[in-house]
Order: sequence, then C-alpha cells, then structure tokens
Amino acid sequence: MALCADSSITNTFFQQENPGSLFEFEVIQREANTQARLGRFHTPHGAIETPVFMPVGTRGAVKGMTPDGLVCAGTTILLANTYHLALRPGSDAIAEFGGLHKFMAWERPILTDSGGFQVFSLATLNDVDDSGVTFKSHIDGATLRLDPGRAVAIQEQLGADIIMAFDECRALPATPSELEKAVDRTIRWAEASKRSQKRTDQALFGIVQGGLDLDLRRRCLDAIVEIGFPGYAVGGLSVGESPDEMAGFLSKFVRHMPEDKPRYLMGVGRPIDLIRAVTSGIDMFDCVMPTRNGRNSFAFTDNGFVRLRNSQYRLDSRPLEDGCPCYTCNHFSRGYLRHLFLADEMLGPILVSLHNIAYYHRWMQRIRDAIASDRLNQMLAECEKKFAQRREDHEAT
Amino acid sequence: MALCADSSITNTFFQQENPGSLFEFEVIQREANTQARLGRFHTPHGAIETPVFMPVGTRGAVKGMTPDGLVCAGTTILLANTYHLALRPGSDAIAEFGGLHKFMAWERPILTDSGGFQVFSLATLNDVDDSGVTFKSHIDGATLRLDPGRAVAIQEQLGADIIMAFDECRALPATPSELEKAVDRTIRWAEASKRSQKRTDQALFGIVQGGLDLDLRRRCLDAIVEIGFPGYAVGGLSVGESPDEMAGFLSKFVRHMPEDKPRYLMGVGRPIDLIRAVTSGIDMFDCVMPTRNGRNSFAFTDNGFVRLRNSQYRLDSRPLEDGCPCYTCNHFSRGYLRHLFLADEMLGPILVSLHNIAYYHRWMQRIRDAIASDRLNQMLAECEKKFAQRREDHEAT
Repeated sequence: MALCADSSITNTFFQQENPGSLFEFEVIQREANTQARLGRFHTPHGAIETPVFMPVGTRGAVKGMTPDGLVCAGTTILLANTYHLALRPGSDAIAEFGGLHKFMAWERPILTDSGGFQVFSLATLNDVDDSGVTFKSHIDGATLRLDPGRAVAIQEQLGADIIMAFDECRALPATPSELEKAVDRTIRWAEASKRSQKRTDQALFGIVQGGLDLDLRRRCLDAIVEIGFPGYAVGGLSVGESPDEMAGFLSKFVRHMPEDKPRYLMGVGRPIDLIRAVTSGIDMFDCVMPTRNGRNSFAFTDNGFVRLRNSQYRLDSRPLEDGCPCYTCNHFSRGYLRHLFLADEMLGPILVSLHNIAYYHRWMQRIRDAIASDRLNQMLAECEKKFAQRREDHEAT
Repeated sequence: MALCADSSITNTFFQQENPGSLFEFEVIQREANTQARLGRFHTPHGAIETPVFMPVGTRGAVKGMTPDGLVCAGTTILLANTYHLALRPGSDAIAEFGGLHKFMAWERPILTDSGGFQVFSLATLNDVDDSGVTFKSHIDGATLRLDPGRAVAIQEQLGADIIMAFDECRALPATPSELEKAVDRTIRWAEASKRSQKRTDQALFGIVQGGLDLDLRRRCLDAIVEIGFPGYAVGGLSVGESPDEMAGFLSKFVRHMPEDKPRYLMGVGRPIDLIRAVTSGIDMFDCVMPTRNGRNSFAFTDNGFVRLRNSQYRLDSRPLEDGCPCYTCNHFSRGYLRHLFLADEMLGPILVSLHNIAYYHRWMQRIRDAIASDRLNQMLAECEKKFAQRREDHEAT
C-alpha cells in the first residue's frame, strides 16, 4: 500500500508481550544535560515510546483520519474525550460495541480525559460543589451531572488504556483563592476517582492543578502522589497564560514529579512548546493543533507554517516539506493542496491533517533521537533561534 | 496496509504493455443472451476491463477519497470535469504541473468530459451559436467562451487518456426542433473537435445526442461514426426522462453503435440502471451517486440503502453489508458510522463514500462475471425482482 510504503515515520510500537509489566514505565535513558528522558510505557494494547504525542479523537475519530492513516502517520496512542462521547453516542452505547477500541477500530492504546476540562469550558454550569458538577449539555441543553465516580464509571465503559481522574481546571488568570479552591477539589476528587476505580486493566492517572503558583502546585502534587497513581498529569496549563510563562513554570516544577512514572502535559501544544516541556521532563502530550490547523489549510514545516491559501503556492510543485516521508508529501504538491482548499474539497483537510500529524510524530522522534545522543539542548537552541527568527519575520511583514 | 489487505475488490488492471495496441478495444467475450460484452480498452496509463464504472473527481479529487483509497476500492479509471478544472485552477496551471495525472497523483487512466454538459446546466448562458457557447462562470461571473477547439485544447492541457468531443446537451423533455438543433450542432462540433485534436496520445470520443427519438439518435450516430472516433458516448440521457424510458431507449439504440469500439453512457446511474444498460451493450459509466450518497449517509447494499441516520442503527454492530471486503466494512459497524454522521465527523462521509465506490466496482465485477458465464439475464431478473420488491416495500410504508 502506497500509504505506508515509506515506514520511516512509523514510530516504534511494541505489541504487549509481557502482561506482568502492565503499566510499568521503564526509563530507558536520561539525557545528560536536561531533565528529559526516553521511556516506554506498557499498556494492554501495547507499549508506547516516550516522549510521545497523542492526536486528539474528540468524538471517537481523529478528524479526517482513518485508523490506518494514523498508523501510517506514526500514531502509537491517541486521546478521546469523555465529555463528548458521554453525551453522544453515550458510554453505554460504546460499551455495547465492546468499548472504544472496537467502536473506532483502533487497536493501539487510547487515553481518555475525565471530562472535567470540557465541563468547565464548553458546558453551561449550573452548579459546582465539593462533590461534583451539574451542567447543561452543549448539544441539547439536557441537565447532567459529572463527579469523580461518574467520570471513572464512564471511562471504564469506554475502556481506554489510560484514564484520568476528575479534576477542576481553572482558566488563567485566576485569583489565588480560586486556584486554591480548585486544588482542594482536585485533590478530593482524585481520592474519590481512585476509590471508584473497579477495572484493573486501566491506568488511572492523577492530575495536578494550581495555575502558575509553584507552591500551590507542589502542595497539590504532594497530595496527589500521596494518593498514588501509575502516572501524573499537569493540568490547567495552556489555558490563558503565555507560552513563555508555561515553559518557565514547567522548568521549575516538573523535576519534582515522580521520576519513575510517566508525566503528561495536557492540551499542549506547538512544536516548540513540546521540546521545551521535554527538556523539563515531560513524557506525554496531546493537542488539536495538527488537525485543527490542517483543516484550516495551515501545514507545519521546520520553516513555519505553509499557509496554503496564499497565492504564492498556486504553481508551487514542491511538497509541503522537502524530505517529509508522509503520504501527502510523497504524492502531492503545494499547488494541488492549495487548489483543494480553494475548491472546498475535503481531501485538502484530510491530506494536510495527515501531514501535520506525521510532522508532530517526526518531531517527537527527532526529540527522542536527540535525547538518545545527549543533544537535546542543541536541538532546543536551534529551534529557539529559528522560532525567534520567524517571529521577527512576522513582525517585519 | 490494512486498506488493501483484502485484494478481492481490486479490479483487474493491466499496466500498458504493448504501445502498439494504444486505444485498441478488445471484445473478449460476447454474452450469449444479451447485447453485453466483456472488453479491454488500452490507454497510455494501462488497460481497463469493461464494463467499467468511473467515479467522478469533479475538481481533480473524488470527494473524500485519496488515490490509494480509490485503488483499494477497485477504481481503474476515473472521470474529471473539464468545466470545473478550466475555471479553477485553470488548465494552464494543471499543464504546468505536468497534467492532471501528476497534479492529482492518479497513475491510472482518466477521462475528462468536454465541459458541454456543465456549461448548459451550471453556467448562466449568454449566447449559444453554431460555433460555440458564451457563458458566465458560476464561480466569479466572468464571461467565458467554450467551443469545440477550446474544449479540446483544454483537455489536451489536462492530458487525460480519454477526452470528449464538445456537444450540446438538452434537458428532457425537449421539443423535437430543440433536439434536432442540438443534434445538428453536436455533429458540427464533433467534426470541429476532431479537427482541433493535436495530441495523438489521447482517445477523443464522439458523443451522440437526440433525446429519446430513435430516428434522430440514429441520424446523429451515423454522422458521428462517419467522422470516426475510437469510442462513442451516449449523451443526453438521465437528464429528466424516467429510468424506464432510458432503459427502453437503450435496448433499441445501443445495438446500432459500432461493435468494435467502447460505448460510454454518460452520467448514469443507479446499480439497476447499470445492469440494464450493460444488457443493451454499454461498456462504460460514470456517476456521482456513490460519493454524493456517501456524503449524505446513504450506503449502497444489495438490499437497498442503509440510511445511517435512522435510529435503528444506533446499536447495530454489523458492517454496512455482510461479506463486503471494503475497508469500511472490514473495520466499522453501522452504529459507529451513524455516530460519525450525527457528530458531523468528516470520517463518516469518507468511509461511506469508500464503501459505495467499492460497492459499485464489485457490482461491475459481478456483471462481468455474469457475462463471462452467460448468466447476465438471470442476474438482471433477480435484480429487477429485488428492486420491484423494495419499491413495494417503500410504497407500503
């Protein structure tokens, strides 16, 4: 099949071989000059290499991508949204189909979020109290309730390999007392989430909240670690603060997270955000940027976005990025892709989403290669320089 | 690659081996009881088995389908629309990319229509005279002119394997004098089209017009055959008359078309229309039905449409059609596909378009198998019976 003819972007992926090592996180190598590490996390659907990027399949589909297209782009694990799937088609329905893997025909690992973030950002909140949240569905206005027990029960019906504790995520900037309240609830809800867990074949990750306040974050982290989870996530970032503030915070915070467990930065981000966070010790990421930008005709390359609607690409016979081994770059010119967007052909969003996801996975592979050879700082420096250069270019135009 | 794991729907396709036989049409077998025949048509991009169905890639893309997805669905030749491509991105632009095959990364044969049908159906006509048509673009209102010379020149820039003479297509019902005038112009324009042809590596097909009037059609056919083409098309059907009228007309007309050249019925149709036309001797078809219905959540099966938005499919774990070897049926349930359409996920249109195209190609393969074993009448009778049964079902509800 042409789509996978070049396997160089297919990330290493291990079918689970040793059930005894379920949810074990092996730190394979620590980079000499940063907090970065190479790891391997074992799940019921195979072991993933970290640092890893997870494309987002909000409603049980990564927009415009078939499962085989994702595999060819190098996806080893993807994320799906509990909130969206609980509203439609409902976790009961998905359980009837044998769980999310079977429903969406994805045989590799899946992570589901807890629904907390979407409840606070998408739904109309009726009431938030210490035990949970009552809200109106953004689809049909129905009144619903989500709490730690329900969030875990739904995720157990969905059946992902990694599930998330229910948390309260505050948009930034937030007042200290708002953040403190959210942290208290997040700790209480983490305990309740763990108590509710019945299935033993899913890894329940704890989430740390606390905004950019290092002391508050560490208090939250200590409490969450005390409860004890097979992995830990940093929530509540990329929610209003600047990327520099986020990177600065992570450089001080992530080193305090348990070394022997995977560390997941939720909802982040741009390629430069990923490499910055990896140098601080983050292992896992998810973000809608590759697919959302792909649908909007923006293609990621090492030289910044190719904005395909620009007239300069009308007769451009080059691929999106020279040397990119993805299906899109192997077959199509910028001029053709531009034509698809101007003609409103859905093949445009499909092909550029595919390239962008492959770009993200290649980016993570380059990060892993840099870790393996202790050159991550050098890669970061080059990346920062290019990025600053591009910003100057943009300011100049 | 999963997408092509099961090769049973990949139609036989021959890379061109003998340039000496370019545009030769081999009649391999004549069915004993009908006018149907098995054939092979040799083009610069390979030889196609007939009877054949051509998916429609209006703007240089079959909606929602990658080229490799088309190959996996069994597509051996596709159609693209001269009118749409001439307006955007322009045939000059496509020529700069090395022609339509390279532009859209399709390595198998392509047929382009002449633009005549779209000019008469989509554009605002300013003026039709005996030498051509002046019209306003449906995209930006620009005034443009299309005539036989220009239609051929554009198609030479696009570079398809099969190109079509410029014709005048009348919607039905039409008055006898309107039809006669259209026939006269179609004959004149066929001569002019042939005179304009410069490239020798494209087969220019003649088009027969004349509505449902057998005498007028035969007069047109005689004149077009007198001019001489490597293939002949029946235009001006499926433009307002009933399917039964069309089938009845074809049963009397097609037998008069040259036996040693491919016969192409333009813009048709439903599976039952295809088998009816094949029994009358037609070899080639194109139609947007599989993709248009796929985008609208209607899936073709032997038992009629699966209308995926219907609530009866909510928990249906069956594939669209039992035994269908397509990628969609191999991986996804009706319940999942229904969910994709309700959630407005573009993967729904993608997957059902793929199934529908595969269904059409399997249908043609079954027709070819029936011809090879002299059972086409039997297949037609079963098909008519099922079809009548479904109509009764519909009338009863």
